[in-house]
Amino acid sequence: MKTEDRGPKNEAGSLRYAAPDFTAPRLAGAPPARTVAAESDGVLPDGFFATTNLPTYVKSADGQWSLPHEPRMDGCIVAAEGGWWVREGRRVRRGDRVVIGRAEDGSEGVLVHAHGFQVPAGAQGDFHFMSSQVSREKPIDYGQIARMLVDERARGGRVIWVTGPALVHSRARDNFVWFIRNGFVQALLAGNAVGAHDIESAVVGTTLGMTDAGEPTEGGHAAHMRAINAIRRVGSIANAVRDGIIQNGIMHACVVEGVPFVLCGSIRDDGPLPGVITDSIAAQDAMRAHTIGATMAVMIATALHSIAVGNMLPAYYEDPVRGIVELPTICVDASEFLVSKLKDRGTHQAVGVVTNAQDFMSIIRSAVEAEILKRDYPAAARSRG
Amino acid sequence: MKTEDRGPKNEAGSLRYAAPDFTAPRLAGAPPARTVAAESDGVLPDGFFATTNLPTYVKSADGQWSLPHEPRMDGCIVAAEGGWWVREGRRVRRGDRVVIGRAEDGSEGVLVHAHGFQVPAGAQGDFHFMSSQVSREKPIDYGQIARMLVDERARGGRVIWVTGPALVHSRARDNFVWFIRNGFVQALLAGNAVGAHDIESAVVGTTLGMTDAGEPTEGGHAAHMRAINAIRRVGSIANAVRDGIIQNGIMHACVVEGVPFVLCGSIRDDGPLPGVITDSIAAQDAMRAHTIGATMAVMIATALHSIAVGNMLPAYYEDPVRGIVELPTICVDASEFLVSKLKDRGTHQAVGVVTNAQDFMSIIRSAVEAEILKRDYPAAARSRG
Amino acid sequence: MKTEDRGPKNEAGSLRYAAPDFTAPRLAGAPPARTVAAESDGVLPDGFFATTNLPTYVKSADGQWSLPHEPRMDGCIVAAEGGWWVREGRRVRRGDRVVIGRAEDGSEGVLVHAHGFQVPAGAQGDFHFMSSQVSREKPIDYGQIARMLVDERARGGRVIWVTGPALVHSRARDNFVWFIRNGFVQALLAGNAVGAHDIESAVVGTTLGMTDAGEPTEGGHAAHMRAINAIRRVGSIANAVRDGIIQNGIMHACVVEGVPFVLCGSIRDDGPLPGVITDSIAAQDAMRAHTIGATMAVMIATALHSIAVGNMLPAYYEDPVRGIVELPTICVDASEFLVSKLKDRGTHQAVGVVTNAQDFMSIIRSAVEAEILKRDYPAAARSRG
Amino acid sequence: MKTEDRGPKNEAGSLRYAAPDFTAPRLAGAPPARTVAAESDGVLPDGFFATTNLPTYVKSADGQWSLPHEPRMDGCIVAAEGGWWVREGRRVRRGDRVVIGRAEDGSEGVLVHAHGFQVPAGAQGDFHFMSSQVSREKPIDYGQIARMLVDERARGGRVIWVTGPALVHSRARDNFVWFIRNGFVQALLAGNAVGAHDIESAVVGTTLGMTDAGEPTEGGHAAHMRAINAIRRVGSIANAVRDGIIQNGIMHACVVEGVPFVLCGSIRDDGPLPGVITDSIAAQDAMRAHTIGATMAVMIATALHSIAVGNMLPAYYEDPVRGIVELPTICVDASEFLVSKLKDRGTHQAVGVVTNAQDFMSIIRSAVEAEILKRDYPAAARSRG
Repeated sequence: MKTEDRGPKNEAGSLRYAAPDFTAPRLAGAPPARTVAAESDGVLPDGFFATTNLPTYVKSADGQWSLPHEPRMDGCIVAAEGGWWVREGRRVRRGDRVVIGRAEDGSEGVLVHAHGFQVPAGAQGDFHFMSSQVSREKPIDYGQIARMLVDERARGGRVIWVTGPALVHSRARDNFVWFIRNGFVQALLAGNAVGAHDIESAVVGTTLGMTDAGEPTEGGHAAHMRAINAIRRVGSIANAVRDGIIQNGIMHACVVEGVPFVLCGSIRDDGPLPGVITDSIAAQDAMRAHTIGATMAVMIATALHSIAVGNMLPAYYEDPVRGIVELPTICVDASEFLVSKLKDRGTHQAVGVVTNAQDFMSIIRSAVEAEILKRDYPAAARSRG
Repeated sequence: MKTEDRGPKNEAGSLRYAAPDFTAPRLAGAPPARTVAAESDGVLPDGFFATTNLPTYVKSADGQWSLPHEPRMDGCIVAAEGGWWVREGRRVRRGDRVVIGRAEDGSEGVLVHAHGFQVPAGAQGDFHFMSSQVSREKPIDYGQIARMLVDERARGGRVIWVTGPALVHSRARDNFVWFIRNGFVQALLAGNAVGAHDIESAVVGTTLGMTDAGEPTEGGHAAHMRAINAIRRVGSIANAVRDGIIQNGIMHACVVEGVPFVLCGSIRDDGPLPGVITDSIAAQDAMRAHTIGATMAVMIATALHSIAVGNMLPAYYEDPVRGIVELPTICVDASEFLVSKLKDRGTHQAVGVVTNAQDFMSIIRSAVEAEILKRDYPAAARSRG
Repeated sequence: MKTEDRGPKNEAGSLRYAAPDFTAPRLAGAPPARTVAAESDGVLPDGFFATTNLPTYVKSADGQWSLPHEPRMDGCIVAAEGGWWVREGRRVRRGDRVVIGRAEDGSEGVLVHAHGFQVPAGAQGDFHFMSSQVSREKPIDYGQIARMLVDERARGGRVIWVTGPALVHSRARDNFVWFIRNGFVQALLAGNAVGAHDIESAVVGTTLGMTDAGEPTEGGHAAHMRAINAIRRVGSIANAVRDGIIQNGIMHACVVEGVPFVLCGSIRDDGPLPGVITDSIAAQDAMRAHTIGATMAVMIATALHSIAVGNMLPAYYEDPVRGIVELPTICVDASEFLVSKLKDRGTHQAVGVVTNAQDFMSIIRSAVEAEILKRDYPAAARSRG
Repeated sequence: MKTEDRGPKNEAGSLRYAAPDFTAPRLAGAPPARTVAAESDGVLPDGFFATTNLPTYVKSADGQWSLPHEPRMDGCIVAAEGGWWVREGRRVRRGDRVVIGRAEDGSEGVLVHAHGFQVPAGAQGDFHFMSSQVSREKPIDYGQIARMLVDERARGGRVIWVTGPALVHSRARDNFVWFIRNGFVQALLAGNAVGAHDIESAVVGTTLGMTDAGEPTEGGHAAHMRAINAIRRVGSIANAVRDGIIQNGIMHACVVEGVPFVLCGSIRDDGPLPGVITDSIAAQDAMRAHTIGATMAVMIATALHSIAVGNMLPAYYEDPVRGIVELPTICVDASEFLVSKLKDRGTHQAVGVVTNAQDFMSIIRSAVEAEILKRDYPAAARSRG
């Protein structure tokens, strides 16, 4: 993937997209995509076409090429009401018409257009340093990430945040609340642990039994259990906010601001909290409802949920005005490994930020505040340098 | 925890356990544990006692101290038929008598006996190098791990293996099959990915779309999808083995040898395979059925499942002959971070092996084969040096 | 080492030191330390006492116990003008009187006082989460580190900074210059690479051939070579500053502010820059001139130099007013491994900050600025919350 | 660098090299390389050509293109007796004729032939998993590395081993001795620590104060100091072997087998051992004497020395029979980071093995023994399967 090498470019998401030339003989002469009916629920016909997260065109019987709806990787393509749809195999029903073919070059009626966002090859030589894709040794352009976030808010984008419990520790928690409160978060996708430790902090005053200063507390190993129990008693997180049991933090901000959240269950959960979706298939469906329609993703300190969401997330989206646009995906983790792993699972568009989650939140908030000030008061921002 | 500092000692699991002195005035004079009835299903009374994985004694009204059944951390203690039981909060029913109290020193009728396995303080000075608990720079005593495994097999122990998909790559897969075939695996606890990529290897011949040599293959990103689909078509993994669709590998060996496995679902699953338990609470219950009764645990290359099982696993077990015995827990990962994280979640007894999962399997198999040879033919083993 | 478990406490460096009770029979009755003459230059007598970085008392013939001068680990103790001196073995000359003995408990006249700074055991239970010493999952108290730095400046302390080239990337470089300019850096201990890439930035405008945004440049792999060559032409870094070849950056700030720096050579150096001390023994001596007298150390993103300085740095120093004081040592790195490794080499007092070096510099500068504001204008700081 | 993506191919080092087409107008019409005299010792003329480790051709006044002698990266090219020579800037003397030019495409008389080893683009699609260059999740083909090593021994190649002290721990040490004893090591390039801890093991029986089982010993922190002192007393490592002070281990094997070693000094050394080259420039020259002429490099568990040797090591060598051949470079480390860092410093040809150094040595020894058996007794090897 040549596209892997790009960091965020000067104008966020501004890489121009070139659609395929469908008049080229290779494509013009290609047959329409062939479909076969599924033999039973959740079972695909042999030779089904397996989707990627790249722009993919399917040729219909009338010779038209079109993008399927609701793209994601690891799905199949089904002909249904309104055209072509990308669907998980388990959701296919007996008799659904499933696209067949393995070729990705259009010769069987399906074209994966891998180089639509291709950057023109630079004049750079063939030997250079720092050619790795992700490294703690590369400077991070927080200013650009901030511009992206402010742009998204300005144009009414939908930014989904995917986070692990590292974000719940005190400083990061306050900063994340700021982002929720100020309209930068359109959905929070996480696990039971984020909710449990955030609420532990609200109810007991510790996270993972530690104080803000990282000191363990007596009996601290049970703090999250007591917090979960308190919420179970009132039946839901929203009830706990209403009753004043939860008076601050991430879940509180989501409830108060009406920001939707999906907390999915996992094999390692304590509790769980009421509202956690313990069935992983149901939880996937709940998360995908948010990835369809997302215009940016920020993934912080979670391997499990980042890869889960990466699997569901196309590398692009269709904007009514701007056409096909890259879907900016920021992945923050303390180690290069997670970002590489995410790319290795196909989320090649992810831009890695190798740092501590708490520090990321602190700096990106400052950068966003500076960007807002610059836009609101350009003269003032200039005089500050 | 002083117990954290110990690696496996010269005789596997041979640390002697010293029960508390219940005649000491502090304990003899302590009140019996107090219980309060749960107000509704899955909700605990305020001030419930939260369990750890350490030997814990509860005082009954008759003055007797006893260990609760089915110990684990992050549970509560319930008075029921047959004595005291450790139970997850969500499994408590309205009216169940739940132990109350936060003190762990016996003063409220519950004693956490943290130092039962305490090693006598050595004559070592106060300043030394390599005092970290887990480090790639420490030599690993594979011979001792091998002795533990052979001992367990000899005495009919129950060794549970908790693995991530790294074990499915070709060399490790063959070695793991050898362990299953030769009676060293009493249960396999894993996720959908282990099954999916193992079966991908059996059906398509790749893992994660790579050949044995680590080369990507054309269309390889769909290989696991095609494998999953093939199993969905026949309804179960066992059927696929019966029908000859799966002819080798880990799942094949488990089916053929009758080794039970639990594959739990997660938010990032493709498929899933038939038989995967997609509800995380049901999956926890299925796994815990194996942790109760386990006499050793081997965790390899999985953060999620290692921590999950660590949460359910006591740090000891009661043996009819040997009394209270440490439950050996080996945790293998490429980074120190996972082992530290596991310990930070309370599984302090874990002994870390910082290495590549494939290499671990290769070396530990050789060590176990050597150990068996040594026991079967002591003279031959000596002459080989 | 019990002292390992402590993070910085509420008042920086305020742990109270308890001197040993020399009237205790064990110490009062101990013999004076025995010395043996070195047989030749750089060769120690058998059984020499090997030093640690902990407070260590040597008993003289007159029965007095005293701390040797210039403490460090991995040295020996020599009787010389003015009392006892810690000296590297290679610096011992034939005939020097070297202390003999392996016991660290005073019984041979040398006492390693490991628990002088011991924190009273808390009331915490024996089982708790997050007991690891270093983890990215622990919150970092930047406010306290900031207070330490501002305190040191206020009382005229000597803070040594030990840095790797990650600090040279654009944002971190500006922040580090701010610390140099504002009196927080009393010495910079680093390698050729820090100088080379800092000067590359000043002369060519890239670091490691990358722009500020992390993009490679054409011919960028040679940028540092051209920068080094430019300095070699004028003979020294100071000359290059004087001639306007270097107009900004870390080396510029050091020269202009008169902050001493030691750049030591290594096997991987290009160039090197003029002024780099290529002999590693001479470079050690140059660095140790700064560790003697240091009152705080900040180590950032360098394994080699952190461990080197850790080897030379006592865990305490004697303050004329405050007596024996812990020497605060902050170690910043992107991975837990370096901090653990540093501790494993005996620098047990190091407090780890697991983050990206650039982010650390950004946040700690903000925290120091806030702390200064708070001290200068307490009312204003309060109203800001 | 397209060449980065290749792992070792089916036949070790067998990628065919295609020389440039010098009759192409672009090259045929290029001017000869221009040289300028160095103005003073160790100072290069402005605009000097900076070398890479790739095959590089320089055009002479007679129109001939030729490869410079003694290639390495980060050098310059000097016209001297016998043609063109790559030389470090510091070794250039006043008046030496240094090649000028920044273009790498031949247009100024110097051609960097980056794609001589280019693999034909495969038929693989554009989207695939596991596209990262280095990952613990990729299977390692030990069989191929073993074939390379046995091939090198068979054809009289020169394999240089670059190692960190992790190799000194007990199991790895024995295995490394086996490689030295059996003719697989033509030079050992390391630092003082490898020698010191290897000799600590021979003299005191511990490494870093730990026993073979990883247990600390009383007074163990001084063990390496006592070992170093013992060698300093007799003046050299060779004397210590002769006198029976060192009776086993790596240094012993090198001395007995006549395998040359370079131990270079560093800022963190204790001692150092006699024979350690403390001047880093002299140590570079000593190491480069071995990289010139190397036909394979194995780097294990050392960032410092791997990058140092990577800087000196061309990506190819000229074989009298086979022409221009890739120089296989294996880099073993517990984390992906080191291998990525090595590549980021230009050693793009490195093949990464992400594992524990001790386990690598164990498995690669077994693989080499199996390969030898297979070659010596092909029938026997087949029957073993």
